[in-house]
Amino acid sequence: MTGSLGYVETRRAVVATPQDPLLTRSGGRLEHVEVAYETYGELNTARDNAVFVTHALTGNAHAAGLHIGEKKRGWWDNMIGPGKPVDTDRFFVISPNILGGCSGTTGPLSVDPATGKPYCLDFPLLHMTDLVAVHRRLLAHLGIERLYAGVGGSLGGMQILQWAIDEPQVMDRAVLVAASSRLTAENIAFSTVAREAIMSDPDFVGGRYVEHGVFPWRGQKVARMMAHITYVSDTTLDEKFGRRRRSTGDAWEMGPDFEVEHYLQHQGMTFLDRFDALSYLYLTRLLDYFDPFGDPGTAEALGSSSTRFQVTSFDSDWRFDTAQSRRMVEQLAALGVDVDFAELHSTYGHDSFLLEPAGYHERVAGFLA
Amino acid sequence: MTGSLGYVETRRAVVATPQDPLLTRSGGRLEHVEVAYETYGELNTARDNAVFVTHALTGNAHAAGLHIGEKKRGWWDNMIGPGKPVDTDRFFVISPNILGGCSGTTGPLSVDPATGKPYCLDFPLLHMTDLVAVHRRLLAHLGIERLYAGVGGSLGGMQILQWAIDEPQVMDRAVLVAASSRLTAENIAFSTVAREAIMSDPDFVGGRYVEHGVFPWRGQKVARMMAHITYVSDTTLDEKFGRRRRSTGDAWEMGPDFEVEHYLQHQGMTFLDRFDALSYLYLTRLLDYFDPFGDPGTAEALGSSSTRFQVTSFDSDWRFDTAQSRRMVEQLAALGVDVDFAELHSTYGHDSFLLEPAGYHERVAGFLA
Repeated sequence: MTGSLGYVETRRAVVATPQDPLLTRSGGRLEHVEVAYETYGELNTARDNAVFVTHALTGNAHAAGLHIGEKKRGWWDNMIGPGKPVDTDRFFVISPNILGGCSGTTGPLSVDPATGKPYCLDFPLLHMTDLVAVHRRLLAHLGIERLYAGVGGSLGGMQILQWAIDEPQVMDRAVLVAASSRLTAENIAFSTVAREAIMSDPDFVGGRYVEHGVFPWRGQKVARMMAHITYVSDTTLDEKFGRRRRSTGDAWEMGPDFEVEHYLQHQGMTFLDRFDALSYLYLTRLLDYFDPFGDPGTAEALGSSSTRFQVTSFDSDWRFDTAQSRRMVEQLAALGVDVDFAELHSTYGHDSFLLEPAGYHERVAGFLA
Repeated sequence: MTGSLGYVETRRAVVATPQDPLLTRSGGRLEHVEVAYETYGELNTARDNAVFVTHALTGNAHAAGLHIGEKKRGWWDNMIGPGKPVDTDRFFVISPNILGGCSGTTGPLSVDPATGKPYCLDFPLLHMTDLVAVHRRLLAHLGIERLYAGVGGSLGGMQILQWAIDEPQVMDRAVLVAASSRLTAENIAFSTVAREAIMSDPDFVGGRYVEHGVFPWRGQKVARMMAHITYVSDTTLDEKFGRRRRSTGDAWEMGPDFEVEHYLQHQGMTFLDRFDALSYLYLTRLLDYFDPFGDPGTAEALGSSSTRFQVTSFDSDWRFDTAQSRRMVEQLAALGVDVDFAELHSTYGHDSFLLEPAGYHERVAGFLA
């Protein structure tokens, strides 16, 4: 019986301390790392039913269920819950906010214990393996040693891939949706424009905007508006908005008039309330550099892996397209890893991984069964 | 024998005066319109060998040949010249800067005779038909009544289409390359983000930046960097830059590091020297509203047209893709217009129309022969 989780809440765990700091791959030292996370379902007595869910670029720990006083369900509520593909009647689901984020987990706006001020651009550059290191510490904090599965879409999927590489014997199943093992030049190009918009905003103030009581909202809004176009497909935009506009006849305007313009304005504005510009910089940059199969030692690690992979792409996704999934599948298969791949049909572009195109949920459910 | 034009120069013509103002479709009245233009080749005695070339969004009158003291040839020098597809041994070629531009022809930074100050956002919103009206006046100024052909790519092609509609008996041949008869929602989406970047730049100052001694360079740079991605293909970016970067190993940077980032930085910066933000707003907006087949009366006009069309698209162009050309071709054919269409293979994306993919120049040359 499929249903929804009831009320859930975000908790916090401290996973790095001055005595046990997190050393980032870039040479940084984080002496206090806190993780915001949620859990759904119950850990069984064998402690072997844990499913770790990792979010995409601008996600947070609130993947499913409702927060008291709010109307909007978690960002993957259609995937996680009683009787759903990530079935909370069977699994103990862990969903943290990622390192570098801005929804409760330590990130560039956190206070640097050494200075008493926000890190800002003094926060160390992050590698995917640093995000995984925090996930591993959270898992240990919860007293869990093995994962029934890791599940993630987009940047979430890439964290799962990195985890399977970093700990080849911990994760039984890895579900990667709309992900990539290596961004293309075009992917990097879009990200660099987004960062340019943010960093060239006069209210960026070299990254120290919080201390100046401002924030680079203009640049952040532009970055999101542009990025949003790459998350959807031209078909979706045409079907949803076409060329409909609010003016009539020749009463044209320089400002927003077409419905697609008002939609992007809305996307850009609401993003300002829920996300931070510095986190956007750090997490997009992390994606640009991600290239685990180009990393010495990776091949050897995966060769001994016991993780089975399921990789899924969507035919209208042009942000991380099927060619990128196929390359990842070939890279995995070349190392002898067990990997099941499918491209599914969907008109919704990259955002398909958050929606329910035909066959998608069934496919994930089947792999986790 | 194929060669290049020698030195050429840009001239100017006044095509609207207080006694003969240009009334724009949006209700504006321009009492002084100057056009910058170049001509190549000789007008024959029958005055029937004129070919009108129209430029794309950020082009100018300097389509071919060399300006004294400069090293860079005109933007379409590979297409126009002795023995080239637009053969200056046979044709008298006219190439103007468009209305609303910023390279010599009247645009938003021109002085409003009524105020003695630049128009800025008081410049009337433009319709494609206003650009054509100026072209027609320039042609009359040159004492020419008929066109052997009109030739344009991208926005240039759309001007030719509009002209064929506005004057169905004047143009014998219309060459439209990488054009569209109607922008998609995605096209409009990219344009609105570009305008948002410019208009939200604090140095835009409500459009009156010139009077304040500043200009919205940050926004204009971001707009161009983003737009440039849409002019090329992911294949081009991958082949040209891939994931090459200037740092080595784990010496990562938040600022530009990958070669594709440096390339976009360069594209953005050089654009600031050669183009104006207000022209960018006016000309992108004009494109958004362009929809001649949705315009009452258009069908009737084209039904009586004597113009033969050649429409060409490129398979890697995702800015104005083949589907858009096909729709235009169907719209033309439905009105009984003679139209020849081909999709050519090229990996260069929208910019293919400025390059020489296999079969392209031969195709244009054949149609003009």
